[in-house]
Amino acid sequence: MSGADGETQRFAVLGAGSWGTTFAKVLADAGRDVVLWARRPQVATMISEHRANPDYLPGVRLPENLSCTADPEQALKGADVVVLAVPSQTLRDNLIGWRDLLPAGGTLVSLAKGVELGTLKRMSEVIREVAEVPETQVAVVSGPNLAKEIAAEQPTATVIACTDHDRAVALQTACVTSYFRPYTNTDVIGCELGGACKNVIALACGMAAGLGYGHNTTASLITRGLAETARLGVALGADPLTFAGLAGLGDLVATCSSPLSRNRTFGERLGRGETLAQAQDAAHGQVAEGVKSCSSLRELARRHGVDVPITDGVHRVCHEGLRPEDMAAELLGRAQKHEWS
Amino acid sequence: MSGADGETQRFAVLGAGSWGTTFAKVLADAGRDVVLWARRPQVATMISEHRANPDYLPGVRLPENLSCTADPEQALKGADVVVLAVPSQTLRDNLIGWRDLLPAGGTLVSLAKGVELGTLKRMSEVIREVAEVPETQVAVVSGPNLAKEIAAEQPTATVIACTDHDRAVALQTACVTSYFRPYTNTDVIGCELGGACKNVIALACGMAAGLGYGHNTTASLITRGLAETARLGVALGADPLTFAGLAGLGDLVATCSSPLSRNRTFGERLGRGETLAQAQDAAHGQVAEGVKSCSSLRELARRHGVDVPITDGVHRVCHEGLRPEDMAAELLGRAQKHEWS
Repeated sequence: MSGADGETQRFAVLGAGSWGTTFAKVLADAGRDVVLWARRPQVATMISEHRANPDYLPGVRLPENLSCTADPEQALKGADVVVLAVPSQTLRDNLIGWRDLLPAGGTLVSLAKGVELGTLKRMSEVIREVAEVPETQVAVVSGPNLAKEIAAEQPTATVIACTDHDRAVALQTACVTSYFRPYTNTDVIGCELGGACKNVIALACGMAAGLGYGHNTTASLITRGLAETARLGVALGADPLTFAGLAGLGDLVATCSSPLSRNRTFGERLGRGETLAQAQDAAHGQVAEGVKSCSSLRELARRHGVDVPITDGVHRVCHEGLRPEDMAAELLGRAQKHEWS
Repeated sequence: MSGADGETQRFAVLGAGSWGTTFAKVLADAGRDVVLWARRPQVATMISEHRANPDYLPGVRLPENLSCTADPEQALKGADVVVLAVPSQTLRDNLIGWRDLLPAGGTLVSLAKGVELGTLKRMSEVIREVAEVPETQVAVVSGPNLAKEIAAEQPTATVIACTDHDRAVALQTACVTSYFRPYTNTDVIGCELGGACKNVIALACGMAAGLGYGHNTTASLITRGLAETARLGVALGADPLTFAGLAGLGDLVATCSSPLSRNRTFGERLGRGETLAQAQDAAHGQVAEGVKSCSSLRELARRHGVDVPITDGVHRVCHEGLRPEDMAAELLGRAQKHEWS
């Protein structure tokens, strides 16, 4: 990364959804030189000319120093840091298309939360594999980061994780603003697992809300959900402390408690008795991230011999026809015992 | 405790506020013989004759097998287990009055959450001191337990902690119902600390909401709040794992996210610029538990050399005239760093 003082870094942010656009705004507000790439040319034009991305961030005025293009070559030209903000299940295909344009030695940053179906790889693993870079070159951003709140410049803490601590610090310095406060961490596995699992737990919390359960139930689901996330993470080599932090507990609480969370809202529809197809229609054809991740996380847990009852229940509701009320009864019916036995 | 099969136990529940009344209902629904004590005779009559406690649990019909009296002697006569459900700062005085009526060898259960002002003792310590019993005879109940939801028979998990594991199991067996699922734990210190600190963090979350901050901020406060609770707990001898469980994280999330929480609501009023007196007037003269606990917890932390920035901020807002917006600026302004340094 050039410019250790953080002044001359050039950032490319690939993906102009709500989080990609918001992170590009953060970088621009922090004084960085940023080019955002949007898949659709009309979105690029809207951002460049009207400083707005109304589909994803209605009402938000984007900064003047943020440019946007639909041409990946233009976005990546001269970039020192490349931020990947496309959905987790399309990251591999996108990255294959961009591979020859990536800067040698530059930092690749993942904003995607998920585990790839089929390969069961985390996003940083997909990036390392496709871009053929060492793990020290890949960073992830995770935390209690509802994009719309950050875009509204609500004070937010986040975690920037990279096995190369100096690289994490450089990135931290590059994106600090009055409303965005990054902390560093070297536990990439834990941060990514926290980000992927929280979507599944948010689906479960949504289902509980849709069934009419209250805050006691949601709080128990969050607690037991974090415990199963940590069990799986530790089996994969994560630091258990990460799950007690912003990228674990923090992200989970924000996602599970906010009405802005797509996964929670999607789960609520399932809890009220809608089918997956009906919930998908209501979400303008989008399936919530957790609907896919629940299957890959469940399979990952099975391979490592880890018990993940909530993830398992969500998978069975989403893909095997289990009724949400039967999932709730199963989870509540687990034998009374010591809390950690 | 007589009746190892849980069938012949006689329970006295002392205190007919929302949690005391609700816990008495749980015990009655679990088939136990329960007598509830209310300070005010008209409340006792209302519960015994009309099966209702409209001041605390409007709309809830109490079970037929729950009797209530304003005479402590009648409530305690023949009791095997005594459940203490009075406010934390009045527990000592109440207990001194009841001391000679307590059953020899019986279990004393604390439902109160707080740390006594002046002595800085936890509720179980106050009970041991006043009742002159060993710690193995004192249990505490804690968890994501919003009383109104339990009274509405919403499924709820809880933790029953006692250093005597067998006694915790006996209590667990005695109060399990279709909607109330107790887990056992032997870490009394951790469970009590979690219960006391969560009220203070809920005040902070309320202040943030009153200032207009969103879910990212709340989630960060919950995360950092749990971290400072765990630091203090570990310094006092608690098991760090407790804070990741229902009596730590679970209770904290339920209290901080629910509009039913008195502490959160009280904090919101302070955040909107009301004075302590104004917020107290709006709460029918009641001061939220955290307003008192923040001072005792801060002093406890000071004595043990533990850094508790959120508790310190809440204390200064409540008792030293700090403006909530200045507290927020201070917390956000802490130097950027590694998450756990």
